[in-house]
Amino acid sequence: MPSGEDSLITRYFKPLASDPGAFGLTDDAAILRSSADELVITTDAIVEGVHFLPGDPPDTIARKALRVNLSDLAAKGAAPAGFVLTLALRDADDAWLAPFARGLGEDALMFQFPLLGGDTVSTPGPLMISVTAFGRVPQGRMVRRNGARAGDRVVVSGTIGDAALGLDILKGGAVAAALAGDAAARDMLTGRYRIPQPRVELAETVRDHASAAMDVSDGLAGDLAKLCAASGVSAAIDAQSIPLSAAARSLLSRGAVGIESILSGGDDYEILCTVPENRFEGFEGAARLAGVPVSCVGTVIAGASIPRFIDGQGSEIALPRRSYSHF
Amino acid sequence: MPSGEDSLITRYFKPLASDPGAFGLTDDAAILRSSADELVITTDAIVEGVHFLPGDPPDTIARKALRVNLSDLAAKGAAPAGFVLTLALRDADDAWLAPFARGLGEDALMFQFPLLGGDTVSTPGPLMISVTAFGRVPQGRMVRRNGARAGDRVVVSGTIGDAALGLDILKGGAVAAALAGDAAARDMLTGRYRIPQPRVELAETVRDHASAAMDVSDGLAGDLAKLCAASGVSAAIDAQSIPLSAAARSLLSRGAVGIESILSGGDDYEILCTVPENRFEGFEGAARLAGVPVSCVGTVIAGASIPRFIDGQGSEIALPRRSYSHF
Repeated sequence: MPSGEDSLITRYFKPLASDPGAFGLTDDAAILRSSADELVITTDAIVEGVHFLPGDPPDTIARKALRVNLSDLAAKGAAPAGFVLTLALRDADDAWLAPFARGLGEDALMFQFPLLGGDTVSTPGPLMISVTAFGRVPQGRMVRRNGARAGDRVVVSGTIGDAALGLDILKGGAVAAALAGDAAARDMLTGRYRIPQPRVELAETVRDHASAAMDVSDGLAGDLAKLCAASGVSAAIDAQSIPLSAAARSLLSRGAVGIESILSGGDDYEILCTVPENRFEGFEGAARLAGVPVSCVGTVIAGASIPRFIDGQGSEIALPRRSYSHF
Repeated sequence: MPSGEDSLITRYFKPLASDPGAFGLTDDAAILRSSADELVITTDAIVEGVHFLPGDPPDTIARKALRVNLSDLAAKGAAPAGFVLTLALRDADDAWLAPFARGLGEDALMFQFPLLGGDTVSTPGPLMISVTAFGRVPQGRMVRRNGARAGDRVVVSGTIGDAALGLDILKGGAVAAALAGDAAARDMLTGRYRIPQPRVELAETVRDHASAAMDVSDGLAGDLAKLCAASGVSAAIDAQSIPLSAAARSLLSRGAVGIESILSGGDDYEILCTVPENRFEGFEGAARLAGVPVSCVGTVIAGASIPRFIDGQGSEIALPRRSYSHF
């Protein structure tokens, strides 16, 4: 007598619950085994029409829901341990659920991040996927936002701004027009929006060398301001040092987008961290071994002012809107 | 430069994040300290128009979101350790958020269940509150659904069916008409729907004596069928032994509702468990000390058939729809 909800869980999600603590999703709760490590917990939800677009492929929605959380764990220096999933659906549509579960399962396997449990509810509204993610760090070693000190270097991984440009393309904005003849660039940028690359490989490097860290999810300018505020410091950023993809650089040089949309755009899911000067060589070497590109973009300075972004002429870049806010 | 989202968190939720591992909600993640215990994880979401009504008082919505999760922990024999909250809101309305946060805070304090972290997102759709709850049990002691054995007693806590009757009242159904003159009964029943009483005090008793347990959230008949299926057994239930409130009993005897709506109605949030015959005396004594009424309603029997509910004439009660299903 399985209900629709139970058969949906059995069909699509039970195969992903390979961890013994998940009990094959046949119980009301899961067990996360105890260990000497501390458990890092983070939760991030994505909503249709807000964090992803109604037409996005279901497998990319699943991957994004997982990866935004893996990105948080990595920035805290934590190794993935597992997740629980809350799925609010309008209906149990196989054509949507099958690719969603497939994308979720592939990512869970790739990141060794088992599904431990969840809840599936009906909603008359937009799709929503909420993930609570668990990671492990040795006792007292979670990397906080509040450890940045004047003199530390400000570092980011990967490239910044691509996902915001990709979203503009998907919405048919100015970037779509500017790249009308370049399908490869369009695909790269929209891919960055739909499927973030969480920097899981950088977690240990961040834990070993960074004084403070967070992931860049709401825009570099705003997220750096949050990190600085938590640490009681400010920062001076050389905008020309901010790592950009070739596509973003080309759009900037042609004037198709302004630097402020790069600095304030969201969805990067790169790691922003501060590294003491005497740890920087070790940090850079470890990042190289981990295969993650990192760039020094500025310096932590004393003071409580909002971090300044300086252009090639030495002028401060005006940023009317530094980050995405839901309200 | 706090965003609307940040100031909302600072104003309403930071005061609830008293646990040191929550870092005052100023970081991207929380820490749950390690211990020799195992961590029990459960997640349950409630959606406006599905699990609560659009006009429900915000503080009761908050309490329900927490309590449905506390109920799961109690049924698994776990002590509350903390929770994370995902809140999907249409707007940041102080008139709604203030009482919501107050209700959440009062319950978090009362159940010693600290807020560890969360995510607040905007949605154009219905309100949704998703809670992931953490509890602790000694190693290997989580009470599963799958341990019931033929001969065990079937036990429920409290009274069954009140919440479903309360929902009927709130929707202006037949129960509302039948209780038109009895405000006290109406208030009791609607209160049972809006503010479940999780049986946290019974957790240790369940852990010490029950062979299988779950909470009754989707209807006693359907939930017992799930427990029996997980255990590979069946059950015979004496419907006359099912504990009812005076209001429910009166409605039944007057023919205003049928027994099937009591047995299949959801939102009870009582504990359903099976107790071996030689543990029953100990179970009952411990429950009495814990101050939680418990009733033996039947017996686990061998076989794979769906549990039968027998009426006062010895006939099986027909249950066309045994439990709530979202799909």
